[in-house]
Amino acid sequence: MTQRIERYLDEKKSCVENTLKELMPEPSGLAADVIKAMNYTLFSGGKRIRPILCIAGAEAVHGDADNLVRFACSLEFIHSYSLIHDDLPIVDNDDFRRGRPTNHKVFGEAMALLAGDGLLTMAFNVIARFGIEKGIGNTEMLRVIDMIGYASGYQGMVGGQAVDISYEGKDPDPNVVNFIHTHKTGALIAASVTTGAILGGGNEDEINSLNQYGQNIGLAFQIADDILNVEGEKNITGKEVGSDASRGKITYPYVFGIEESKKIQRGLIDRAINEIAVFSNSAWPLRDLARYIIERDK
Amino acid sequence: MTQRIERYLDEKKSCVENTLKELMPEPSGLAADVIKAMNYTLFSGGKRIRPILCIAGAEAVHGDADNLVRFACSLEFIHSYSLIHDDLPIVDNDDFRRGRPTNHKVFGEAMALLAGDGLLTMAFNVIARFGIEKGIGNTEMLRVIDMIGYASGYQGMVGGQAVDISYEGKDPDPNVVNFIHTHKTGALIAASVTTGAILGGGNEDEINSLNQYGQNIGLAFQIADDILNVEGEKNITGKEVGSDASRGKITYPYVFGIEESKKIQRGLIDRAINEIAVFSNSAWPLRDLARYIIERDK
Repeated sequence: MTQRIERYLDEKKSCVENTLKELMPEPSGLAADVIKAMNYTLFSGGKRIRPILCIAGAEAVHGDADNLVRFACSLEFIHSYSLIHDDLPIVDNDDFRRGRPTNHKVFGEAMALLAGDGLLTMAFNVIARFGIEKGIGNTEMLRVIDMIGYASGYQGMVGGQAVDISYEGKDPDPNVVNFIHTHKTGALIAASVTTGAILGGGNEDEINSLNQYGQNIGLAFQIADDILNVEGEKNITGKEVGSDASRGKITYPYVFGIEESKKIQRGLIDRAINEIAVFSNSAWPLRDLARYIIERDK
Repeated sequence: MTQRIERYLDEKKSCVENTLKELMPEPSGLAADVIKAMNYTLFSGGKRIRPILCIAGAEAVHGDADNLVRFACSLEFIHSYSLIHDDLPIVDNDDFRRGRPTNHKVFGEAMALLAGDGLLTMAFNVIARFGIEKGIGNTEMLRVIDMIGYASGYQGMVGGQAVDISYEGKDPDPNVVNFIHTHKTGALIAASVTTGAILGGGNEDEINSLNQYGQNIGLAFQIADDILNVEGEKNITGKEVGSDASRGKITYPYVFGIEESKKIQRGLIDRAINEIAVFSNSAWPLRDLARYIIERDK
């Protein structure tokens, strides 16, 4: 199983990387510095999980997945922006990410801020141009734009991040950690699979099942990150181990302990897989991916 | 003339304010703080110039302007986000804006960062939902989304802001100040009028003329800001006077001197008005507005 999904991930990742390179210009002109800063984090060895989930979501409903790789890349622009802003000293103050100095350590804080703003904005350019080039229907395009905005904004990622910050150092609270994780990470991961299913031409039942799948694996994915922050190895994860605890972050291990967190995680993966039971073989990557998420070491 | 345009601005401004209130929720739930921070700057007494220009652009081409106020509001979300991020200590470090403490002085830097991210993201939600509700054609909607992204991102506002920061303290350079102002301020102002013309159903010639108009007044608008930073009064502008010079900002007065800057500004306004000479009485607010921009005292 592991080999099959690893091959799939490698293949899709290289396809996403190539398309990201087409979309993102080389630095030039007076504003070259900010373009350089955008490139730095966009091409810093990410797993490209969100675009891959979008592609796999389209495949699950027998959509033409090759046709929507450009769209899928918009999700990576949003993810990259969020990493840059989260790492800033005024937020998490992280010096390393994926084993390299964080954006602001290289380009300065103001430029990093702007690089994040630029990547977030550009995500919507990427989506709009995709729609224009492919001539996709209005309903679908505006629906996915709204969905991605919702998953990224105060109702999603930004909201989760805000609560994450406000509750640092507070007592453990299951409701709070659930809110943080489903908003900060889960929302965009769910939107990735769901928008893939919409643009792949899935019907409403299929779209709903894939959205449920996405919400479950999204939460499991963030719990896996929490566990890696306790049990992982810096030379593999590329991040400081134990940094969540030293900052008083509200995480699953902090609220439930490691063993219970792993149990919750397994339950989420089971539910995710169950949600997509109706799909044929077209959803095998999503099934394998769900299990892979909790087995990864970075 | 002044009375007529002031009445027009008051009327449109109150219409924009009401719609912004409909669009922006009251703070509630765990993420109430970030929603509060978003509200704080969105409702801090802005002139609402960008939405009003969008409405006036639609009117110029005899479009149904009342119908696109929701869309026009998206431009104010983007403008508000840019103010919050620009005021952060890691960028311009401003303590006051429009006579009130800046966002980060009230909510802290991390929350201000997120409030900006939330407002930028929400702009695209507002646009997408507008398109869904009004059933506007795909071509127009994706074109305006792309245009607003372009005007706000590294090819526009973010790029201008990046150069603004990089060149602080450098020698005066006409090319640099032109780049900064046309990108940082001009691009979104031009996009405001132009998207209004597109959604108002203007033909390509009309759209081009209004875009040229917008680029000229956009630059004139930023030169007016520069001049107010030298000559204005703090109790009227709501900002520190002389802050550009003490920071070594590349401004028009710094590069060309005050008198030459005013001459350039008048030339831009003449060109702007000339660009829309073909329009009938439907463009009177744009003509009056062009002159009003350089006469304002805040």
